[in-house]
Amino acid sequence: METDRPDPGLYPPDRIGLAAAAARAAGLAALLLTPGPDLRYLTGYDAHQLERLTCLAIPAAAGEPFLVVPKLELLAALASPAGGLELEIIPWDETDDPYALVAGRLGDMAGPMGLSDRMWALMVLRFRDALPGVRQDLASAALRALRIRKTPAEVAALRAAGEAIDRVHARVPVDFTIVGSGPNAASPHHEISDRALQPGDAVVVDIGGTMPSGYCSDCTRTYVIGAPPPEFTAYYRVLQGAQEAACAAVRPGVAAEAVDAAAREPITAAGYGEFFVHRTGHGIGLECHEDPYIVSGNAEPLQPGMAFSIEPGIYPGRSGARIEDIVVCTEQGHERLNHATRELVCVDAR
Amino acid sequence: METDRPDPGLYPPDRIGLAAAAARAAGLAALLLTPGPDLRYLTGYDAHQLERLTCLAIPAAAGEPFLVVPKLELLAALASPAGGLELEIIPWDETDDPYALVAGRLGDMAGPMGLSDRMWALMVLRFRDALPGVRQDLASAALRALRIRKTPAEVAALRAAGEAIDRVHARVPVDFTIVGSGPNAASPHHEISDRALQPGDAVVVDIGGTMPSGYCSDCTRTYVIGAPPPEFTAYYRVLQGAQEAACAAVRPGVAAEAVDAAAREPITAAGYGEFFVHRTGHGIGLECHEDPYIVSGNAEPLQPGMAFSIEPGIYPGRSGARIEDIVVCTEQGHERLNHATRELVCVDAR
Repeated sequence: METDRPDPGLYPPDRIGLAAAAARAAGLAALLLTPGPDLRYLTGYDAHQLERLTCLAIPAAAGEPFLVVPKLELLAALASPAGGLELEIIPWDETDDPYALVAGRLGDMAGPMGLSDRMWALMVLRFRDALPGVRQDLASAALRALRIRKTPAEVAALRAAGEAIDRVHARVPVDFTIVGSGPNAASPHHEISDRALQPGDAVVVDIGGTMPSGYCSDCTRTYVIGAPPPEFTAYYRVLQGAQEAACAAVRPGVAAEAVDAAAREPITAAGYGEFFVHRTGHGIGLECHEDPYIVSGNAEPLQPGMAFSIEPGIYPGRSGARIEDIVVCTEQGHERLNHATRELVCVDAR
Repeated sequence: METDRPDPGLYPPDRIGLAAAAARAAGLAALLLTPGPDLRYLTGYDAHQLERLTCLAIPAAAGEPFLVVPKLELLAALASPAGGLELEIIPWDETDDPYALVAGRLGDMAGPMGLSDRMWALMVLRFRDALPGVRQDLASAALRALRIRKTPAEVAALRAAGEAIDRVHARVPVDFTIVGSGPNAASPHHEISDRALQPGDAVVVDIGGTMPSGYCSDCTRTYVIGAPPPEFTAYYRVLQGAQEAACAAVRPGVAAEAVDAAAREPITAAGYGEFFVHRTGHGIGLECHEDPYIVSGNAEPLQPGMAFSIEPGIYPGRSGARIEDIVVCTEQGHERLNHATRELVCVDAR
């Protein structure tokens, strides 16, 4: 089994300082980050999300950052990349109040606290009570601008994730991982059922996962068992063209919603618009779904280093298809991170 | 692969009504439950926790409960046990505001909203803004009394989980799942490293996981490679006695903290008190850690149907040991759900 030792380039030691500056710029007085992608991004510490509080507190102005951990996680925290940072790590005992500990160390706050987006309500409300009168906002107001543009080391981690999935698609039909067949192909997030594959089924194979690096991958191909069902070949061609057009639209300065429109336009023109029931894509990195979202209404201009899925789908109800790749916006345009064939693959009916 | 079809007895259809009554009794005007153990407990729907809002809203008094889901999750929600309940399921489109939708349906609220403990801050703050002036509290104020006493069907699910782990321990040393060896055995939540097992190592094997039913399991045994390290046999005997004493203390009416004390007393008396650095146990069910916690300061009396771990540990630093079983409080006393031997097992050094 692979050890979870991260590429040191993934976690440059200056990130906490950059986060403090970003918090200041966003008008936040401090960031409070519980286990999850924000904490991992800033420190490399992939901590357990548990009912016991683990929290990285980063004052935006005066004061040093500190990491509060349950005493029984201290050795794990020290062994993580966080142990190599100039960061005070403060253990708390089972019967201590860690929220009071954090509030006491932060002292009087001259602005709102920014909470990690995935912090549990359990902790949100404890911090509300421990820091009365201090407004709560999301830490993403400060951190999204850092996390949304991937560094070369992060793009390399995403590329490795994409290659891992390409290898799995190359083994189809040897293995199926997440599949929706026949009518279930029309349910975009369908999970496993006991429906047996039948000739004429379209099979949507959406493979996602997280690498030891923490970086995620996500790639969909649609296969057909035996001969394609009625109409399928026609709308699959439309879908292929739409996915191609959306990828081609990716370059710096283009609005995220323009990429969504580039996928949607040919599908609508061919009469399948009502069957494309979801956005075109989602950002990806330490979270499988993160900023930027490729959706109508998101006017944010794309920038080099932004990574996201391009995954139009057509689900007429009796069958369905989706084609998904991870794409990174580059200075010149874009780079696809998945290369498994997008041609229609018909699998022997056995 | 096993399908995820739950035992129908696990999800009796009256739970939403019981939750509304419990919310009323707890002074909450409504419960707002995003994907996680609360939603699964009440409806059987094991939904994805994503940035898109899925939320079961349960008015405490007037008004019917409803489940808001992203449109692309509608088929999945309908296919889950939630689809068989008398429960309105309302899909929302990618560009809708689902928070406004929930707030609009709830109307004026005469008391606080109760949020699922694991709701992400992202959603907590959106609900705060969508329902201005309505205080936010935790749904566990209402739901913990329901969830903390397991039904016979739930105990059966926990028993099956315990048996699954017992089978794994019976295969030691064929497979190791989560192990901390030598100095790492002193880090209670140690994860995988590349340290090779050595003769004289104590190996703490803590196996947890979730069954297809959603119910969790957790069981620890400590093995020794070859001959035990110095002092180990002595404190392992103390630990075995402490775990036995704590289990024997479990019966209705006994305070949770008294069970902690029953484990701690013999360890302290033998001079190892400072090396027992964590609480004695945690509740278990749809969450691997839930109420009741077996910890100093928790005076809650045990009741039949409460299920929790009993897992004292001694970690002197150069080695460590823990013995953990899941125990259910019964009318007569208790039932252990793990039966793998608690005698010291020495594994051949190879």
